[in-house]
Amino acid sequence: MRVGVLTGGGDCPGLNAVLRAIVRKGVPAFGHEFVGFRDGWRGVLEADVRPLDIPDVRGLLPRGGTVLGSSRTNPFATDDGVQRIRRSLDDLRVDALIAIGGEDTLGVAARLHDEGLRVVGVPKTIDNDLGGTDYTFGFDTAVSIATEAIDRLHTTAESHHRVLIVEVMGRHAGWIALHAGMAGGANAILIPEQRFSVERVLGWVESRFRDRYASIIVVSEGAMPEGGAEVLQSGRKDAFGHARLGGVGDWLAQQIESRSGREARTTVLGHVQRGGTPTARDRWLATRFGLHAIDAVQAGEWGTMTALRGTDIVTVPLLEATKALKTVDPALYAEAEVFFG
Amino acid sequence: MRVGVLTGGGDCPGLNAVLRAIVRKGVPAFGHEFVGFRDGWRGVLEADVRPLDIPDVRGLLPRGGTVLGSSRTNPFATDDGVQRIRRSLDDLRVDALIAIGGEDTLGVAARLHDEGLRVVGVPKTIDNDLGGTDYTFGFDTAVSIATEAIDRLHTTAESHHRVLIVEVMGRHAGWIALHAGMAGGANAILIPEQRFSVERVLGWVESRFRDRYASIIVVSEGAMPEGGAEVLQSGRKDAFGHARLGGVGDWLAQQIESRSGREARTTVLGHVQRGGTPTARDRWLATRFGLHAIDAVQAGEWGTMTALRGTDIVTVPLLEATKALKTVDPALYAEAEVFFG
Amino acid sequence: MRVGVLTGGGDCPGLNAVLRAIVRKGVPAFGHEFVGFRDGWRGVLEADVRPLDIPDVRGLLPRGGTVLGSSRTNPFATDDGVQRIRRSLDDLRVDALIAIGGEDTLGVAARLHDEGLRVVGVPKTIDNDLGGTDYTFGFDTAVSIATEAIDRLHTTAESHHRVLIVEVMGRHAGWIALHAGMAGGANAILIPEQRFSVERVLGWVESRFRDRYASIIVVSEGAMPEGGAEVLQSGRKDAFGHARLGGVGDWLAQQIESRSGREARTTVLGHVQRGGTPTARDRWLATRFGLHAIDAVQAGEWGTMTALRGTDIVTVPLLEATKALKTVDPALYAEAEVFFG
Amino acid sequence: MRVGVLTGGGDCPGLNAVLRAIVRKGVPAFGHEFVGFRDGWRGVLEADVRPLDIPDVRGLLPRGGTVLGSSRTNPFATDDGVQRIRRSLDDLRVDALIAIGGEDTLGVAARLHDEGLRVVGVPKTIDNDLGGTDYTFGFDTAVSIATEAIDRLHTTAESHHRVLIVEVMGRHAGWIALHAGMAGGANAILIPEQRFSVERVLGWVESRFRDRYASIIVVSEGAMPEGGAEVLQSGRKDAFGHARLGGVGDWLAQQIESRSGREARTTVLGHVQRGGTPTARDRWLATRFGLHAIDAVQAGEWGTMTALRGTDIVTVPLLEATKALKTVDPALYAEAEVFFG
Repeated sequence: MRVGVLTGGGDCPGLNAVLRAIVRKGVPAFGHEFVGFRDGWRGVLEADVRPLDIPDVRGLLPRGGTVLGSSRTNPFATDDGVQRIRRSLDDLRVDALIAIGGEDTLGVAARLHDEGLRVVGVPKTIDNDLGGTDYTFGFDTAVSIATEAIDRLHTTAESHHRVLIVEVMGRHAGWIALHAGMAGGANAILIPEQRFSVERVLGWVESRFRDRYASIIVVSEGAMPEGGAEVLQSGRKDAFGHARLGGVGDWLAQQIESRSGREARTTVLGHVQRGGTPTARDRWLATRFGLHAIDAVQAGEWGTMTALRGTDIVTVPLLEATKALKTVDPALYAEAEVFFG
Repeated sequence: MRVGVLTGGGDCPGLNAVLRAIVRKGVPAFGHEFVGFRDGWRGVLEADVRPLDIPDVRGLLPRGGTVLGSSRTNPFATDDGVQRIRRSLDDLRVDALIAIGGEDTLGVAARLHDEGLRVVGVPKTIDNDLGGTDYTFGFDTAVSIATEAIDRLHTTAESHHRVLIVEVMGRHAGWIALHAGMAGGANAILIPEQRFSVERVLGWVESRFRDRYASIIVVSEGAMPEGGAEVLQSGRKDAFGHARLGGVGDWLAQQIESRSGREARTTVLGHVQRGGTPTARDRWLATRFGLHAIDAVQAGEWGTMTALRGTDIVTVPLLEATKALKTVDPALYAEAEVFFG
Repeated sequence: MRVGVLTGGGDCPGLNAVLRAIVRKGVPAFGHEFVGFRDGWRGVLEADVRPLDIPDVRGLLPRGGTVLGSSRTNPFATDDGVQRIRRSLDDLRVDALIAIGGEDTLGVAARLHDEGLRVVGVPKTIDNDLGGTDYTFGFDTAVSIATEAIDRLHTTAESHHRVLIVEVMGRHAGWIALHAGMAGGANAILIPEQRFSVERVLGWVESRFRDRYASIIVVSEGAMPEGGAEVLQSGRKDAFGHARLGGVGDWLAQQIESRSGREARTTVLGHVQRGGTPTARDRWLATRFGLHAIDAVQAGEWGTMTALRGTDIVTVPLLEATKALKTVDPALYAEAEVFFG
Repeated sequence: MRVGVLTGGGDCPGLNAVLRAIVRKGVPAFGHEFVGFRDGWRGVLEADVRPLDIPDVRGLLPRGGTVLGSSRTNPFATDDGVQRIRRSLDDLRVDALIAIGGEDTLGVAARLHDEGLRVVGVPKTIDNDLGGTDYTFGFDTAVSIATEAIDRLHTTAESHHRVLIVEVMGRHAGWIALHAGMAGGANAILIPEQRFSVERVLGWVESRFRDRYASIIVVSEGAMPEGGAEVLQSGRKDAFGHARLGGVGDWLAQQIESRSGREARTTVLGHVQRGGTPTARDRWLATRFGLHAIDAVQAGEWGTMTALRGTDIVTVPLLEATKALKTVDPALYAEAEVFFG
């Protein structure tokens, strides 16, 4: 079989490890040939390919990012997208597709499968908010990097009697904040799933200062104060009276400083969370996803994707990933609250 | 309630995180008092204790090892062990015990529970070979350290056209070797569950050298060649004709050198695998084990231990941990074989 | 002798290692007693002290920050500052002071020495911009952290065909940017010592994209475009027409996006650069500075500070640190330029 | 000019960074062409080359080892070695050589220079024992790795009340042991430059146990007890009465166990110290050595090598590196002794 592979959406540690595993198993075990599409669905639409044989995946296991490149191109955004994809696959004699990506990429994959194309998916998200799988690769790496940053910030907070706020990834789900906050010994964790009360945060901070302890607060980029986005914008004036734009972390620091008189600083971790070499665990998960994805192709399990369940890799319908966002359960968040303040 | 806590067996990253979580939840949520027994069951036998209140667990989350100390003392090795433990708990007014440890420690805990003591367990093993739980804390850290070592050895192997052998922990189960070998891109992984053929290993090594590639072989300390322990001892003569003692890694290097003429070197990772700060994931798991252990005490779930199932922490009978060693499934090992040679 | 010790200014990995070395040598070798002043000169002014004996420095070597706390209090900002310091030292029977800090802290130390106080200094700056010494501790740690971040960003830049900008510390000197940029393989390095041309940066970026390569640009927080601060403010309007505040990194990303149409993103590393455990090299340097500082006290070399010269630790007049900022030599910067574009 | 480059001796983090810098500067700045000789002097003798142009050095900066390969081949071991080298260089039209290596490699380079060949050297040694330069690249990486291992072992030593011995590289000089031992907070450091007394070591260990503290001892592989090699061999019988071979670390553990009754364990760090990605500092040093080496070629400074002096890179006669081993000065070792016991 001739199999096309693509990676879509934001980059993520482990993508290259998936590619390597697919090729390292598919060639000798099943005699497959592989074609790499450049930059996600854009490469499929434009038949823009690069070789993807065993020598091409040598050394890829520890490398972050994706050698195929990525994009957010959506073939359903144009009328003839599906048609162009069919033509492209025909021209390149590609029999099946493995689409590695998040909600958008897998959503496209599911619709193409409905159109009769032979597609298998591999779920990918730093944020861990895809359904159908216990975890996705890249998440453990992001949590590790964020935890290491929190470890580093503790000593600065203590030396300067400050509140340090760490803004981590997670627009819609607080998984990175929750895991890294727990692992890093944060004194408060604020996530998108539950609006936070600035008063309560101030209470924690003050009670700690009374014992001479500084505070570390971990906040998801998508966390929201009570009152919502409106509150987040209000009162954010710079020295010239202009509204300041910035994340929730900056906003919270400003609130703490103005209402408690304590020094507060924010660090926005940003892109470093999604780059670089994957952790051992993410390499393991990504490699196993790759191996099982090519097994699924061989078995003709079209319209499915690989998923982790406990210690097993299984295949589930592509729709499981995209039907609903996997958010942090209130009970799990409550476990962490014992450490707040 | 007054709760005694002990850590037994080999040290393991995450033990301190468990202690911290138990105390940080038990004191405010349930009003428990805590007593730390020094050096595992020895401390219980000898009523040797240290304070274990909230200030005592401050800063423990990222610290490896156990502030309680550990030992391999088995109270059932002496006739009056159980009697002394009862007396000790009475004297110290300890109502319940949390025993954090591996096969031996939890085995003792189970027998004490049979004797009517109120005991809850927390499973601990670097080797990941305890039943009843998907993973144990400390394992991810060990795998990370071993993987990082393998990453480093790749460049030396390539620069010198050598075979480099990495001997990792795992006397009875190959989990560390399998995970670190997969994550590190090993060219062969040898585990205790399956005797290995030196000829087959030589074949892989030679086929790689034909393509100008060096080889990395990851081997569990408990791996065994076909023929068993006898073969491992034979022909191991030093320059003076004396038998050499040493691990399977050294033996394999000697075999490869003498039979292929290629340079082979062994690195025995040893204790560095079990020390130091836990990974973010192990801190998460250890913390949750601690939180659920004190919940189990509060709920009176005596004779149980905490366990990871998928993403949930549950309690299972202590016997699940000790009834059988959790070894690597042949099908899982077979997944890795596609990367050998 | 009874010796007071203080740490002033921003925290820095290695401060605790200096404290430990001073005490670990001073007590047994010279029979000194030590007093730790809290929060820099504030603690001296207010006679706010904490114990600083051998048990108090146990375990400090690998810990970032300073257990003494720090502040930016300047005793010369008040009229009676010197008088209060004299009274404080008298009351506490302190015979000599070791002041560990940067330009401000050492400047105060020099003036107090002029007033007749017995003071020895230890230079400290993340930014490496103090004179009189080849390097200061903390700098190597900051460079390591920044380099690791750059390593991680490379894969994201490549996967998304983007320009990624990393803003690092360095208000007046480009040492961190230069070292981390060289070590991280940056495609451009912009430092405060030399105004940069946006056109030239755009030229490098475009020439790399022509070969399908993304770009990483490392920029000191104090770097300045040609035209200076005015240019930096101009045209920085948000959606509402308000001026945006933000660093040079954000400004540059905006310029690149608007003038080249390429995606550009900025990561501001911030406080993580100055926190956490010191590198081995910084622990070595900090420890040796501590050992030599107490030797200088014993030898009565008042008004001096420790300094690194090649592989030797020497003492130099305090004024050497503060008389002029140590900036990046144009010839050294020119060495790096071969890698730009 | 057409310049041949080779890397000889043991591999070392930073070799690839030197290669990259040479080519990245030599091609655009001077119009040089480059030829890479495979496996040190063997490649020169056999005219075994690989391309070494700008695309060939892409991505090499963070990679450990050497893409040229290495060997310990000595062209002066055969009668016609020099003749074969001349012929090889003539055939390949190579005008000048850059030899990157340690004592042996640079010794050959010096003799070839005496024979009239145009050679420039770059010093390389993990052990830091080459003269003429403050430091060599690779050393900082080795020290970092050893320090990280020591950090990890502390918690195990404490949890189990053990003596843990860490055997690090350094056959003739104790630089790695001294730096890593100081940075890791070792309780004793034993180096080849000064024979150690087992009684003194036992004294330190016992005095620490009296205060309930475990011990970490860092020992160079070349350290030697009083009495010398003979003592090291005596009394090393295994269970069968056979002499045991093994390093000084194993021997010392045995001595401590048998004479104090305390548990002692040894970890031999081995090859992990020399592999993998270089530290930021080593990348900086290696890159600058590469830049200055090609400058020296351009300037015709034959028979010299690059060297670090303070913060400057200079060129010195090749003989400076090889005329005498750079060992640890007794005064420097004495600085560390304050931390012993």
